[in-house]
Amino acid sequence: MTNKEYSVQTIGVLHSPFKEKFAIPRQPRLVKEAVGHLQMLEPFNHEDFVRDLAQFSHLWLLFMFHQNLEKGYTPTIRPPRLGGNKKVGVFASRSTYRPNGIGMSAVELLDIEKTPKGITLVLGGVDLLDQTPIIDIKPYIPYSDIITEANGGFADEAPDAQMTVSFTADALISCERFEAQYPQLKVLIEKLLAQDPRPAYKKKRDDKQSYGVRLYNLNVSWDVIGGHSVVTGVN
Amino acid sequence: MTNKEYSVQTIGVLHSPFKEKFAIPRQPRLVKEAVGHLQMLEPFNHEDFVRDLAQFSHLWLLFMFHQNLEKGYTPTIRPPRLGGNKKVGVFASRSTYRPNGIGMSAVELLDIEKTPKGITLVLGGVDLLDQTPIIDIKPYIPYSDIITEANGGFADEAPDAQMTVSFTADALISCERFEAQYPQLKVLIEKLLAQDPRPAYKKKRDDKQSYGVRLYNLNVSWDVIGGHSVVTGVN
Repeated sequence: MTNKEYSVQTIGVLHSPFKEKFAIPRQPRLVKEAVGHLQMLEPFNHEDFVRDLAQFSHLWLLFMFHQNLEKGYTPTIRPPRLGGNKKVGVFASRSTYRPNGIGMSAVELLDIEKTPKGITLVLGGVDLLDQTPIIDIKPYIPYSDIITEANGGFADEAPDAQMTVSFTADALISCERFEAQYPQLKVLIEKLLAQDPRPAYKKKRDDKQSYGVRLYNLNVSWDVIGGHSVVTGVN
Repeated sequence: MTNKEYSVQTIGVLHSPFKEKFAIPRQPRLVKEAVGHLQMLEPFNHEDFVRDLAQFSHLWLLFMFHQNLEKGYTPTIRPPRLGGNKKVGVFASRSTYRPNGIGMSAVELLDIEKTPKGITLVLGGVDLLDQTPIIDIKPYIPYSDIITEANGGFADEAPDAQMTVSFTADALISCERFEAQYPQLKVLIEKLLAQDPRPAYKKKRDDKQSYGVRLYNLNVSWDVIGGHSVVTGVN
């Protein structure tokens, strides 16, 4: 028995607020204000392909971890959940560095937009990078996809959102100004920072740390002091 | 934006009782006695890749619908669930004829066998054809994969298992003889037939119908009369 190769192609591209990996929610649906737009590509850009999809509240996206493909994988990885100290097999993890580089994410279906240019799915709670290539869409089917008796091993509990978040006066004014263009921007920033996107080894430190991330076309900067984040800039 | 192509390779091959599509359970885990063996292929055939996987009770398999790939897809399909009369978009279905031909199935992890030849995962409740090429294994993570508020549209309820099943005396003796080789063979046959694998249009008929299917290396034959199945041969 030998390995066979298969060719898969992009059926659509996800446009998301997340321009870099840092601060992306650790799981889908943790931050419902993270709204993505899945633009279908030819020849899939026709309403026939999504007929009756609106009956379903949630979808599975299969996608390529496109930024990681060149880096490949290692047989074992260190899950952030285990503090970065313990190695588990890559197939015992949802690591983004994995053989074949395929991810799956269950998101909320908010709307299906049909325009002369084609079909766009509006999705809530996305945890994917901007420009992620989508290779399949499947409806989430509760009786088949919910396994109530499943045991989640070392990933058995949802990550906590423990960090408190505030804005400087200037950052708040700036943030509110951008809400016309990016609805719910303030809540989105608050929720992204509340989940404490810092790498595990930095969470042990108490000194003031400064961070920045690109979100939409903005630069968001913040300071972490103890267990609190202060947003210092939204530009 | 144009479609990009990606290459994916088989990481393992699933050995299952199902040699043809007819009578395969309509969903994973409907028939837990349907046990499959996932044999890992080089270079993934090393215990590092599955280290700590045994902590999880259930796994997602990503696989290729290998028997359908040449036939391709159509933009809309007729789900059996809707009696074969109504068309929905292929992305609004879990159809096996779909762009890129990738399937996902959540199965129970029963055991991880490590032998000098390599690693084999023993899986319960499989709904995949024998020889299915596996392209990824991911742990089922309850807090992320269970969406209690999800609405399943036209596929909102599990299929009923309504058919009663009996064996002729000869078929029963033969079946029990094969149980040494294929444990739980009788229960497996009973559950497969109980879900009434006939195509929708035949379910409306009351006349006696005869069917046969290959299961493991056996031929199983049965008659359907009204709402009852009689197993007439296990050879």
